[in-house]
Amino acid sequence: MRRSSFADMNCSIAQSLEVIGEWWTPLILRDAMMGVTRFEQFQSRLGIARNVLSARLQTLVDHGILEEVQYSDRPPRSEYVLTQQGRELWPVLTMLRQWGDRWLATDGPPVEAVHASCGHETHAELVCSHCGERLRGRDLQLRHGRGAPDGGIIPAARVDRADAQG
Amino acid sequence: MRRSSFADMNCSIAQSLEVIGEWWTPLILRDAMMGVTRFEQFQSRLGIARNVLSARLQTLVDHGILEEVQYSDRPPRSEYVLTQQGRELWPVLTMLRQWGDRWLATDGPPVEAVHASCGHETHAELVCSHCGERLRGRDLQLRHGRGAPDGGIIPAARVDRADAQG
Repeated sequence: MRRSSFADMNCSIAQSLEVIGEWWTPLILRDAMMGVTRFEQFQSRLGIARNVLSARLQTLVDHGILEEVQYSDRPPRSEYVLTQQGRELWPVLTMLRQWGDRWLATDGPPVEAVHASCGHETHAELVCSHCGERLRGRDLQLRHGRGAPDGGIIPAARVDRADAQG
Repeated sequence: MRRSSFADMNCSIAQSLEVIGEWWTPLILRDAMMGVTRFEQFQSRLGIARNVLSARLQTLVDHGILEEVQYSDRPPRSEYVLTQQGRELWPVLTMLRQWGDRWLATDGPPVEAVHASCGHETHAELVCSHCGERLRGRDLQLRHGRGAPDGGIIPAARVDRADAQG
């Protein structure tokens, strides 16, 4: 099933997984967001096979998430820099990290985040873009959007069950 | 590389991927959050091979994300219900959906969310749990947490580069 494609599914989660759902990719993005840019750095931090790393980096370049920038002519050497599209994945990784911290990190979080502006340890919390209130999963009601005028993945009888019940 | 394990990496993103990083799993969770509970429903919505679906559901049960609940004695039939741990994945899927909407949904978002409390279309925005200000990726500074007193994945020279620059 490894080679299945989600490309035909009219769902932004499926489409996103088509790009970043590869096994190693979220960890490559994690390192990229911490400032890693060079092949050798990724390779030594992740302990990933070189051919796999090379393929994953190329996929991310092809999808516009990383940009390959040459930093040396002789010998020719490139580094991999996040694009705007790639940088905007930080909320996905942040929420994934926080969930892992809460449910899987039995010795406590390996990493903590400090909010530079206020100087305190922080967790990202989700609020409504319209009213600013704290969002709960059960307050989200899903409906078909512009990209699926004729219906799609939402089971009609369940629309009011929302994105989640959390 | 499919069978590599991230279990030894002291990183909550890696640990989370160990649980939900399987190719189909985020879409199973997406459907679970929309109220799908039965094997046949998952199967027909996802078009996934039965043996693969069965394995993924069992993995999620083993990790405490889904609970198997028998709803019929004769014949014995079970459904799969999200646990609290599972429901709390909704922010990860929501941010993934929003990223896909923004960068990949060329015809517009297939799905929109309405905030039940305020009645308006909503996007989840991230704010600081301490000061309530809108978080930007570049304002997050990472440091070692309780779970990694001796250091871990953060490259020392890069701590101030933060979670991301977004």
